Amino acid sequence: MKKANVPTYKNLRKRKKRIPGESPGTFVVLDNALPSKLRIYAYDEENIAELETSSIEKALAFVNSHPEKFYWLDIQGLGSQEVLNSVQQKFNINALVMEDIVNNHQRPKYEEFSNCIFVVSRVLELDENINLKNEQLSLIVNHNFLITFQEDYEDILNPIRQRLVHKKLGNIRTLGPSYLLYAIMDVATDHNFNLINRLGDELEIIEGILYDKPQKSIMYRIQGVKKIMLTMRRIAWPERDKLNDLYKSSSIFIHPDVKVFLRDVADHNVQIIDLLETYRETSTTMMDIYLSMINNRMNEVMKILTVISAIFIPLTFIAGVYGMNFAVEDPVSGKIMKNNMPELYWENGYFFVWVLMIVITVLQIIYFIKKGWFRD
Amino acid sequence: MKKANVPTYKNLRKRKKRIPGESPGTFVVLDNALPSKLRIYAYDEENIAELETSSIEKALAFVNSHPEKFYWLDIQGLGSQEVLNSVQQKFNINALVMEDIVNNHQRPKYEEFSNCIFVVSRVLELDENINLKNEQLSLIVNHNFLITFQEDYEDILNPIRQRLVHKKLGNIRTLGPSYLLYAIMDVATDHNFNLINRLGDELEIIEGILYDKPQKSIMYRIQGVKKIMLTMRRIAWPERDKLNDLYKSSSIFIHPDVKVFLRDVADHNVQIIDLLETYRETSTTMMDIYLSMINNRMNEVMKILTVISAIFIPLTFIAGVYGMNFAVEDPVSGKIMKNNMPELYWENGYFFVWVLMIVITVLQIIYFIKKGWFRD
Amino acid sequence: MKKANVPTYKNLRKRKKRIPGESPGTFVVLDNALPSKLRIYAYDEENIAELETSSIEKALAFVNSHPEKFYWLDIQGLGSQEVLNSVQQKFNINALVMEDIVNNHQRPKYEEFSNCIFVVSRVLELDENINLKNEQLSLIVNHNFLITFQEDYEDILNPIRQRLVHKKLGNIRTLGPSYLLYAIMDVATDHNFNLINRLGDELEIIEGILYDKPQKSIMYRIQGVKKIMLTMRRIAWPERDKLNDLYKSSSIFIHPDVKVFLRDVADHNVQIIDLLETYRETSTTMMDIYLSMINNRMNEVMKILTVISAIFIPLTFIAGVYGMNFAVEDPVSGKIMKNNMPELYWENGYFFVWVLMIVITVLQIIYFIKKGWFRD
Amino acid sequence: MKKANVPTYKNLRKRKKRIPGESPGTFVVLDNALPSKLRIYAYDEENIAELETSSIEKALAFVNSHPEKFYWLDIQGLGSQEVLNSVQQKFNINALVMEDIVNNHQRPKYEEFSNCIFVVSRVLELDENINLKNEQLSLIVNHNFLITFQEDYEDILNPIRQRLVHKKLGNIRTLGPSYLLYAIMDVATDHNFNLINRLGDELEIIEGILYDKPQKSIMYRIQGVKKIMLTMRRIAWPERDKLNDLYKSSSIFIHPDVKVFLRDVADHNVQIIDLLETYRETSTTMMDIYLSMINNRMNEVMKILTVISAIFIPLTFIAGVYGMNFAVEDPVSGKIMKNNMPELYWENGYFFVWVLMIVITVLQIIYFIKKGWFRD
Amino acid sequence: MKKANVPTYKNLRKRKKRIPGESPGTFVVLDNALPSKLRIYAYDEENIAELETSSIEKALAFVNSHPEKFYWLDIQGLGSQEVLNSVQQKFNINALVMEDIVNNHQRPKYEEFSNCIFVVSRVLELDENINLKNEQLSLIVNHNFLITFQEDYEDILNPIRQRLVHKKLGNIRTLGPSYLLYAIMDVATDHNFNLINRLGDELEIIEGILYDKPQKSIMYRIQGVKKIMLTMRRIAWPERDKLNDLYKSSSIFIHPDVKVFLRDVADHNVQIIDLLETYRETSTTMMDIYLSMINNRMNEVMKILTVISAIFIPLTFIAGVYGMNFAVEDPVSGKIMKNNMPELYWENGYFFVWVLMIVITVLQIIYFIKKGWFRD
Ligand SMILES: [Mg+2]
Ligand SMILES: [Mg+2]
Ligand SMILES: [Mg+2]
Ligand SMILES: [Mg+2]
Ligand SMILES: [Mg+2]
Ligand SMILES: [Mg+2]
Ligand SMILES: [Mg+2]
Ligand SMILES: [Mg+2]
Ligand SMILES: [Mg+2]
Ligand SMILES: [Mg+2]
Ligand SMILES: [Mg+2]
Ligand SMILES: [Mg+2]
Ligand SMILES: [Mg+2]
Ligand SMILES: [Mg+2]
Ligand SMILES: [Mg+2]
Ligand SMILES: [Mg+2]
Ligand SMILES: [Mg+2]
Ligand SMILES: [Mg+2]
Ligand SMILES: [Mg+2]
Ligand SMILES: [Mg+2]
Ligand SMILES: [Mg+2]
Ligand SMILES: [Mg+2]
Ligand SMILES: [Mg+2]
Ligand SMILES: [Mg+2]
Ligand SMILES: [Mg+2]
Ligand SMILES: [Mg+2]
Ligand SMILES: [Mg+2]
Ligand SMILES: [Mg+2]
Ligand SMILES: [Mg+2]
Ligand SMILES: [Mg+2]
Ligand SMILES: [Mg+2]
Repeated sequence: MKKANVPTYKNLRKRKKRIPGESPGTFVVLDNALPSKLRIYAYDEENIAELETSSIEKALAFVNSHPEKFYWLDIQGLGSQEVLNSVQQKFNINALVMEDIVNNHQRPKYEEFSNCIFVVSRVLELDENINLKNEQLSLIVNHNFLITFQEDYEDILNPIRQRLVHKKLGNIRTLGPSYLLYAIMDVATDHNFNLINRLGDELEIIEGILYDKPQKSIMYRIQGVKKIMLTMRRIAWPERDKLNDLYKSSSIFIHPDVKVFLRDVADHNVQIIDLLETYRETSTTMMDIYLSMINNRMNEVMKILTVISAIFIPLTFIAGVYGMNFAVEDPVSGKIMKNNMPELYWENGYFFVWVLMIVITVLQIIYFIKKGWFRD
Repeated sequence: MKKANVPTYKNLRKRKKRIPGESPGTFVVLDNALPSKLRIYAYDEENIAELETSSIEKALAFVNSHPEKFYWLDIQGLGSQEVLNSVQQKFNINALVMEDIVNNHQRPKYEEFSNCIFVVSRVLELDENINLKNEQLSLIVNHNFLITFQEDYEDILNPIRQRLVHKKLGNIRTLGPSYLLYAIMDVATDHNFNLINRLGDELEIIEGILYDKPQKSIMYRIQGVKKIMLTMRRIAWPERDKLNDLYKSSSIFIHPDVKVFLRDVADHNVQIIDLLETYRETSTTMMDIYLSMINNRMNEVMKILTVISAIFIPLTFIAGVYGMNFAVEDPVSGKIMKNNMPELYWENGYFFVWVLMIVITVLQIIYFIKKGWFRD
Repeated sequence: MKKANVPTYKNLRKRKKRIPGESPGTFVVLDNALPSKLRIYAYDEENIAELETSSIEKALAFVNSHPEKFYWLDIQGLGSQEVLNSVQQKFNINALVMEDIVNNHQRPKYEEFSNCIFVVSRVLELDENINLKNEQLSLIVNHNFLITFQEDYEDILNPIRQRLVHKKLGNIRTLGPSYLLYAIMDVATDHNFNLINRLGDELEIIEGILYDKPQKSIMYRIQGVKKIMLTMRRIAWPERDKLNDLYKSSSIFIHPDVKVFLRDVADHNVQIIDLLETYRETSTTMMDIYLSMINNRMNEVMKILTVISAIFIPLTFIAGVYGMNFAVEDPVSGKIMKNNMPELYWENGYFFVWVLMIVITVLQIIYFIKKGWFRD
Repeated sequence: MKKANVPTYKNLRKRKKRIPGESPGTFVVLDNALPSKLRIYAYDEENIAELETSSIEKALAFVNSHPEKFYWLDIQGLGSQEVLNSVQQKFNINALVMEDIVNNHQRPKYEEFSNCIFVVSRVLELDENINLKNEQLSLIVNHNFLITFQEDYEDILNPIRQRLVHKKLGNIRTLGPSYLLYAIMDVATDHNFNLINRLGDELEIIEGILYDKPQKSIMYRIQGVKKIMLTMRRIAWPERDKLNDLYKSSSIFIHPDVKVFLRDVADHNVQIIDLLETYRETSTTMMDIYLSMINNRMNEVMKILTVISAIFIPLTFIAGVYGMNFAVEDPVSGKIMKNNMPELYWENGYFFVWVLMIVITVLQIIYFIKKGWFRD
Repeated sequence: MKKANVPTYKNLRKRKKRIPGESPGTFVVLDNALPSKLRIYAYDEENIAELETSSIEKALAFVNSHPEKFYWLDIQGLGSQEVLNSVQQKFNINALVMEDIVNNHQRPKYEEFSNCIFVVSRVLELDENINLKNEQLSLIVNHNFLITFQEDYEDILNPIRQRLVHKKLGNIRTLGPSYLLYAIMDVATDHNFNLINRLGDELEIIEGILYDKPQKSIMYRIQGVKKIMLTMRRIAWPERDKLNDLYKSSSIFIHPDVKVFLRDVADHNVQIIDLLETYRETSTTMMDIYLSMINNRMNEVMKILTVISAIFIPLTFIAGVYGMNFAVEDPVSGKIMKNNMPELYWENGYFFVWVLMIVITVLQIIYFIKKGWFRD
């Protein structure tokens, strides 16, 4: 009963015990969080400057010395308490938001504040060991600033950085931080889309096996897919609400021309939900088919047992009867007892008993054929 | 365990990997898309002109040379990048819309833009190999122009073309592109209706077999129908939302007199949903009946095994007992041991043992009859 | 495996293939539709006149010659194309409405038009062969005219006709066509109520059998009831929406004093839905009980087999052992072999073997009693 | 297969056939309804007078002769047509309301009329034979009058009467008929609460038995509880809507100070729904546990059968082999055939065969232990 | 069939019978309620004073002698009728609220009154015997006063008390009673969060066992978790409504700056619901896997039984045949009967019969291998 080698997810193990009654807003970085690396861009339609550092002071100095219109501060690794403290103070971020950023188990959500908007996304990927990686991506947006918070250094935002640097005069340079927000939502959605497509492929492979040679491993593979889909659903539905809220929001921090792009990414997310619900039903159906195949096979096993038993048990009884030792002559007194098993002394007794047994067998086989046991 | 020859669907295999972070609006035609063919109509109440070509320049020239009121540009095959680029530029179509048109896995939807409305429909048909064909049909409508995008050259819109050409002064000629939009929605709905009716027939056939001679193939046939219905549901529900939105829309591109027709096609679509939900429940019920028939049959098999075993096992034991060789006389010392199996030397021992066995058998049969095992 | 003689429904077989792309409004009567009979009433508080005819001209002439306030035109049989055409033209009925009237598979619905309201009801009855009859009843109402369209000549509206003719000065004579509309809705609802009550009785009978002598036919009877309920649900839920819309409608064609009556019939319909949902759950529960009874019985069968096998198989083995022919004396050399089956030559070997077998049997019976196999 | 002695409900049998097409408002008392008894109170803050009678004329005379502010007319038994007719005329009650009062299968509901409000409640109780009693309680309220209609003479309103008579100057005397309405809703809700609590106790008892000694009667007891809960749900959900409507109503017949009390009773009803849904899930879970216990037991039975069969069938075969009669000497010719069953003539053949059989047994037991069949 | 040692919940047993018709507002403390202890704080930004007493008079005197801005009266134990009476009178609390406070089975809720707001929370914890403790926490808030009612003396509010005493000038001291209300909601939510996390751990442990060595105890452990989750759901959903209502409330008793904190705690509660729904599905899936493992094992058992029976039953029959005693010579007349079992007198009869039996065995094993019975 070895478990099949299918995708599993281990992120449930991150649960930490809360200490009830803590003051809100005294956020503390997690023990296993990575040290923070900063990357900052200052840009407008024409120009762009970039700085990589791990010092928040240098980053802020860079901002002050670059009078471009827009800035993007990307923070990778959420383990440097003092960096996060400085960011909070500099940008006047609500303590509850900081708490949500470092406690990386938030649902996708969109919250409006007077001086910014706060967005949480989740990015799902299967890593090389086919474990599910479920990363929180937090974003703060105001008129001219975007701050992104990523859990680790693996960089899913690189393609956006490339476009930002090279697409002079494009939307990404002219529409400000809310367009960057859209672009990041789009990347996250595309990652999730690739995962759901991979699950679709896995389900097709399982289905092939199911109809070809059903084995016990199928059950584990289906359950593996279902587990990942369970996590995806937990994310996809609040993601939908978030994107709809963003699209319909009247926040001043979202450029009006970005709305149509947000509608597009919301549309992609609805497609993900659509596929999720379809695959869910597909996997349930495959499980049902598998179980009923098992049932059918059991039925077949029982039929074979019953046919063999039903045929041979009576025959064995007959053989047993003529194996009895009732004596025709009392060994002590020598008395002859003609009634004891006279068949044994018939000229063709042995032949008659074979005839009897063959007749019984034939009758039973006819009965089973009539019952349809040898059909299908 | 051969799979029954039932409708299947292969369109899941179209999944392509997305490249996260691509700039939106840089649409690229799919690898397996067909070259584009153009067919254009210029018409008003009285006159109609038609052109078939694969050159977008000729098509646009045709428009310029025909000062009729309304135009319908039908594009079959979405594989010619430069044709689609020209269309986008000429009609000023949003890049996100072009993306949705070439990526042919969109859900049915209705989107309003400042210069047009955009509608996606899906048409389902079983092809000659009873595989499910699931084609995307995209439409762009403004005051005087309808553009339709079809995936292949099979032409479900031909009846509409006939009516357009021949129904001088009819609604189709006077109400403009939004009436054509309605007419196409109606054709698509009718195709879907025919498919659901075909599934209804299949379910009735399966039901007949189920009550007549239940076989394992039933399971596969039911699952085949369920799979197609799963795809249909994914389409029918967003289709309903789309048609309701269209019907209630205040878009200036929809002629007021077309509204009542849109309500009618929305009504048809609700009937499809209705049937889908009913057939879903019907197929679940048939599956349950099949499984419980299997169960019942297993029960019957077990009963036969038990009756035969229960009757013959004790009899065989008795025969075994009187087949034992306990000796009445020690072969070595010649000592007589009267207690060893005296029954063997009774005058009518053999007769008595038969009486005993018949009595046991009769008692057991009475017991089983009382238990109701031979009823039903 | 004969199917029990329970109500079935055959109306699924009415499915006809649609021809996609047909012009809307070119309605065509169905092949199996009956020729139309007309019955027309002209009435006010004091007077009433009646005409039966199959000529639409005579009917219209009758109207012209009777200057009463209100008219009711009842059309039975929807197979006369020219009659329906005349009616459409005379009363200026939308072509889409005519289509819905002749295609008798519409869901219950309520539609408002500028010159009338259009209502579809469905009436369910079990005919003498306990097949489900599912008739569409279409109504068109304006200020002074009611037109009813029935599929066949069986006349469920007769009681209303009686009241109309005899209840001088009653609501039915003074409140106009919308009161007649209510009265007909009420009759239809009462028919459906009687059917659901009949299903309730059937379920009670099945329950009695279930607890008394469960048999395989129960499964078929429950499924028969479920099938009818499936059809009823498809009708009852849209019927509820229709009645609520009617009750809350601000249409000028509905007399204000009729509203309270419409609320009452809507209330009846909610009771039908209530019962349907209850019976659905009841029938599912009965199915579950039946299946678990089957399971229990299988369990019992297995227990009997196991008890008998477990007891007799070891005994039969012992008997088999002492039926072996190991020789105490070599028949060829005459050598004495004392170790071969000395038990056979003990003075009380046979007695001892019986003691052994009885002890084994008693121990096993004690074990099974302890396991609780003979309880319950 | 005797049914356990659990609560059942018989009120389904009340179904009467409706006569379609009857004129609304011509209400007819039911055949099995009890003769009406009247009890009337005239009261204000200070004074209260009471009359019991079965004559409606006397009751009305009593009202005329008592110029107090408020009146409560309580009618027990709905079988006196003329009494109900008088009440209808005197208080100008809508005929549809009278119909709902005498046809005692209404759902809980609240309806507003121009001259009164109409409320239907249902009171559930288990009678002494643990059958479910499901009584309809109808109420009509206006500015100064409350009329209650009860099906039988069992008096659940007595505590309210006591408070009314003795609580001079209390809310019950000063807030008018709508406070009485509240008080009666509260009594009805408390009765339903007591029933749901009783079901909770029953479920706990069943659970105890389930984990202690699961027997077949558990299935029937669970189904008994589920059946009652099914009836309760049919009542509790519309009751919730009714109470919310009452609480939020702007009717002039409801004293503003009574609103907060109505909110409280609505809150109680939500608690009932809460418990119902919880118990529903609990009972489903217990059923699942029971079924899987049955399954487990079956498994155990099969294991015992298989162990015994697997061990003894090969041994019995071996014994059978050495019970064969192949002869070492031809009885006719006296020819010696050394190859026929030489084992029988070995010095220690019998000992060897026992060794063989013990080895086989031990190997099988080791195999089964390894398979874990003797664990758990 | 011993029950596994998993968390259970006993709080269902608190059900008390209601006495229908009692006057509302005459609240009576429960029999098993603890005597009330009072703890009162008078505080503003700068100063704080505290008193512990069991005398309500002393508490009120303390209030009068401390002219600080805000007060918090914490009542532990709801068993002192006179204390609660005094509190009700002093703070003019609605009698229905007092009833809800002492009857400790309320759902989480939020009610507005003219002079205060009333909030009910529930705190879930597993006690040392892993029974579920489900405590009601009631709160009354107005401009300057918070009153909390706890069922017992175990003090989950201590961390808040610490912050209140030591956080001079913090939000907790400046934002008034509604901030304290938030802080208490947050503590309660954190306790519930810790419980759901514990359930998550338990499910992971069960999953480990399931895939490693499935045993019957798994079923009981899953059901134990499900039971607790059932209680949690009953609380979490109304809790969500309550927190949303609080957050969106326009009550003057809630400080505007507290709203953002209430949104945060509402967000935490949605995470709890999220996890609950996920764990529910997880536990259902694990149950399904367990049941299908049981099924698979049964299948395997049946296969072993069938293989052994199928192989040995025919062999035993053959052995039985050659154990028959058909005589070649009549013992009485001495007549030779050559047809009776001549095989027994063949030179190599015994060898031939072994060959026959081995051939049969090999053929059967080939058949079973082909059937795939020894695979997987
Ligand atoms: Mg937070
Ligand atoms: Mg969250
Ligand atoms: Mg997440
Ligand atoms: Mg989440
Ligand atoms: Mg994208
Ligand atoms: Mg798109
Ligand atoms: Mg897309
Ligand atoms: Mg199942
Ligand atoms: Mg699609
Ligand atoms: Mg789709
Ligand atoms: Mg159509
Ligand atoms: Mg129509
Ligand atoms: Mg139609
Ligand atoms: Mg099963
Ligand atoms: Mg329809
Ligand atoms: Mg219908
Ligand atoms: Mg329908
Ligand atoms: Mg009726
Ligand atoms: Mg009514
Ligand atoms: Mg089941
Ligand atoms: Mg009626
Ligand atoms: Mg009722
Ligand atoms: Mg009801
Ligand atoms: Mg109460
Ligand atoms: Mg209360
Ligand atoms: Mg109360
Ligand atoms: Mg409550
Ligand atoms: Mg609670
Ligand atoms: Mg609760
Ligand atoms: Mg918290
Ligand atoms: Mg918090």
